[in-house]
Amino acid sequence: MADEGLAAETVCQVALVVKDIEKASKAWAEALGLPVPEASLTGPAEETGARYHGRPTAARARLAFFNLGPITIELIEPVGGPSTWRDGLGEGDGAFHHLAFRVRDAERTVERLQAQGMEVVQTGDFPGGRYIYVDGRERLGVTLELLASRP
Amino acid sequence: MADEGLAAETVCQVALVVKDIEKASKAWAEALGLPVPEASLTGPAEETGARYHGRPTAARARLAFFNLGPITIELIEPVGGPSTWRDGLGEGDGAFHHLAFRVRDAERTVERLQAQGMEVVQTGDFPGGRYIYVDGRERLGVTLELLASRP
Repeated sequence: MADEGLAAETVCQVALVVKDIEKASKAWAEALGLPVPEASLTGPAEETGARYHGRPTAARARLAFFNLGPITIELIEPVGGPSTWRDGLGEGDGAFHHLAFRVRDAERTVERLQAQGMEVVQTGDFPGGRYIYVDGRERLGVTLELLASRP
Repeated sequence: MADEGLAAETVCQVALVVKDIEKASKAWAEALGLPVPEASLTGPAEETGARYHGRPTAARARLAFFNLGPITIELIEPVGGPSTWRDGLGEGDGAFHHLAFRVRDAERTVERLQAQGMEVVQTGDFPGGRYIYVDGRERLGVTLELLASRP
């Protein structure tokens, strides 16, 4: 049965959106007892092909990662155009954004989640892979991210 | 350096608060491809000794768990008195609530997080252990749960 759902995939990331990635990285580094990671900026739209609600978006993000073994904590500071990151941050300083699964067959997983009533809200490429955010907020209480290797 | 922070502990749980645990369990089971777990009810106040903002509370919760290997997804439906669960749910159907770490020395971890500006918001016992919620929302963007074996 688990072959037919996300439990067969690898849950790999808990991600937050933050207003100030330097401040958040420092606070998390202190809580975790790890060095402050350097933030990186995602590529421009022409590289990432980012789409938000089906339309191209100039949204970018500054990212920082803390590796906790099986799980990575990802901090995301929204930059530029409209995005699910910006939506998730709202007016606050920081908030949970998504739970990520590394998936083997992204298209099949998306089809399955769509059949369950969830919609793709944002997609984009990154070096070596592709991300797909599926809006599970109403049905599951959280946004899911599917991470796939580039075909 | 990791000896001095949560990175030295085991991150073990991503927890959500939900309005209707049967509905949420069914939706998650479908997304994950796992059987629908049976919900359990936490013990009454005289068993759990639950405290919310330092005061005894009659808060209880219905819980359901999905085991994804290194990480468990926990669904929490608030029942009874005031609690951080109820606060987290607000008017919605479901929302991320906390990230849990299994800790070896809960008191030392709490002291360390308090020194960083975070406060204990709720505590309670469960069979074999004790939970401590630390409000990291302002500083980290999320509430942390520390899970300790009963001394």
